[in-house]
Amino acid sequence: MSVSVINYHRVMGRWEPNARGRLTQAALELYVERGFEQTTVAEIAKLAGLTQRTFFRYFSDKREVLFWGSAQLQELLVRTVLNAEESAAPIIAVASAIEAGAELLQERRQGALLRHRVISANRELQERELIKLALLGEAITDALRQRGVPEIAARLSAETGITVFKIAFERWIVESKPREMKAIVDELLNELKVVTGEI
Amino acid sequence: MSVSVINYHRVMGRWEPNARGRLTQAALELYVERGFEQTTVAEIAKLAGLTQRTFFRYFSDKREVLFWGSAQLQELLVRTVLNAEESAAPIIAVASAIEAGAELLQERRQGALLRHRVISANRELQERELIKLALLGEAITDALRQRGVPEIAARLSAETGITVFKIAFERWIVESKPREMKAIVDELLNELKVVTGEI
Repeated sequence: MSVSVINYHRVMGRWEPNARGRLTQAALELYVERGFEQTTVAEIAKLAGLTQRTFFRYFSDKREVLFWGSAQLQELLVRTVLNAEESAAPIIAVASAIEAGAELLQERRQGALLRHRVISANRELQERELIKLALLGEAITDALRQRGVPEIAARLSAETGITVFKIAFERWIVESKPREMKAIVDELLNELKVVTGEI
Repeated sequence: MSVSVINYHRVMGRWEPNARGRLTQAALELYVERGFEQTTVAEIAKLAGLTQRTFFRYFSDKREVLFWGSAQLQELLVRTVLNAEESAAPIIAVASAIEAGAELLQERRQGALLRHRVISANRELQERELIKLALLGEAITDALRQRGVPEIAARLSAETGITVFKIAFERWIVESKPREMKAIVDELLNELKVVTGEI
């Protein structure tokens, strides 16, 4: 056991390996099976083999289980935009960010599919998802501003990138012969160039 | 008095000239002054010089006052896409639609500004606005499909158009020296072509 795990144990109380992952998995299963509204935190904790107290160490409520990944995704996209080569055009910096986001989701495909089913079935969750996407667009716009990109180009590149990411996600989860999400992102970026070339 | 107005009178009871417009104007004033939550239908009707019964002839609730225009806008955009020249590229059909939408808003600038202030101050209204924009994107996608545009090009053109419309609106309401919203739409479309040309 490494020192960091020992410290973790001391700070957090009883240490449970991958508690966040187990709670998320249990919650998604129950949300799909019974519906989001009908599921209680007690049931989630029980299915994960953990206590409610442990649940509330990781999540403020049962909705948070569905959205903690959004913060991670946003952090990854913003960091990728900021770290893109200095000479990269705004849309290229954004493209590299959504490709990185696609790879993150690829690693979590099963969870992403379940999460999408839950959100699609609940209007309030859909609204929250739209808000998260809007905030993601603002965060990427801000990262582009920090790179010195002028306002209009920053907004357009960021929002267009979010659009590509959203459409790529929707295709990725429904395609009968699943491809890597990144391949779909790249196909859409090429198609976007063709479509807007007609302006 | 024309025959249609007489019929209208008979069907609707006491006829009030431009009741919808008067109620909308009164509601926006009160929402800005007191806040959306704090305003009652009774107050709106009173300020408009009408009865609550008349209010409920036009609107299901006080939120509806803010969103009845969305249906009109959607109808205009969809019709413009469907009526675009047969040879027009998808993005050009969408561009003509959002230009038409910009002209509609231009005619209602004062109301659009007040409405924006009210919605910006209330999270639930913002969520509803995001939903309306998402539905607008779907409606335009569907209109493009009806024109025989392949799925990906339809989605990308429609969603990109909504993005341009949204950003144009935001600029239009904040610019210190107001331009026609249509001019801003056209500027953004040109900039979009430049931005995505780097892909």
